[in-house]
Amino acid sequence: MLFDMTVPQFIKMLHNLDLILDKGAQLATEKKFEVDVLLNSRLTPNQFNLIKQVQIACDTAKLCAARLSGKEAPTHNDSEKTLPELKTRIAETISFLKTITAADFKDAATKHISQPRWEGKYLTGEEYVIHHAVPNIYFHVTTAYSILRHNGVEVGKKDYLGELPFKK
Amino acid sequence: MLFDMTVPQFIKMLHNLDLILDKGAQLATEKKFEVDVLLNSRLTPNQFNLIKQVQIACDTAKLCAARLSGKEAPTHNDSEKTLPELKTRIAETISFLKTITAADFKDAATKHISQPRWEGKYLTGEEYVIHHAVPNIYFHVTTAYSILRHNGVEVGKKDYLGELPFKK
Repeated sequence: MLFDMTVPQFIKMLHNLDLILDKGAQLATEKKFEVDVLLNSRLTPNQFNLIKQVQIACDTAKLCAARLSGKEAPTHNDSEKTLPELKTRIAETISFLKTITAADFKDAATKHISQPRWEGKYLTGEEYVIHHAVPNIYFHVTTAYSILRHNGVEVGKKDYLGELPFKK
Repeated sequence: MLFDMTVPQFIKMLHNLDLILDKGAQLATEKKFEVDVLLNSRLTPNQFNLIKQVQIACDTAKLCAARLSGKEAPTHNDSEKTLPELKTRIAETISFLKTITAADFKDAATKHISQPRWEGKYLTGEEYVIHHAVPNIYFHVTTAYSILRHNGVEVGKKDYLGELPFKK
């Protein structure tokens, strides 16, 4: 379940985020303004702008998958300035996530996960997913969505949630 | 895991939301404006305001727990207008969630979960949590947070994430 809760769902949410960004570009074309205006928008002066929200969403997914699988994540230096560069960042993150399998997660739940800023403290893999990785990726995808929504981009919950695996 | 991913974490996020609302009230007192101004704020004209974001976050948690445990959820008619009423809504939701145990979730993963608007289609319990309930609660808590943040309320990621169960 830890794998299903993360890797495939993170791929889906980053794909949804990519489509939401496209809707932003569409509005920019229609209304004849620079899409960079949206990329540099933020909800409040001391909150991260749209570019940074996308970068953090990607890193949250990438680092979660790397930490829990033991595989090395590709590095990104957060240099994206344009929409194509940001879409490449999402695509590269999705490509890495697609290399991770459920088998790679066999010991994930009980692993000790830490970060430099946690000063030697750790969470188990399961705790890290429940309390940190999952809340964080949805925070940053939702905040990116909100920045676009706040600026008039016509997106809705279905764009955020994406396809649901319904059965009849 | 399905239980740990939902009930206790939903309790925690609704508690965090309650504290975030308190910070909104604090700002209103300091700056001498009516807190109702915040409650009726929204990020864009055709998006739900703060009151509705809180109501939906509560219902997402409450209905998920009820559907997966088979227990009957208390009903709310979305009549909240004031901050005390909204905090009571959160408190009542948390009280209901606290009646749900991991044992109540023993068949949850394979249950067929549906809603009237899904027109006879269903998701398994696990799919419902991964694809719908979890993304939705974080969407609405984050959007409530963003409405307050957008209006100058000093909240940060730690307020959103709450306590992390660190070990040394």
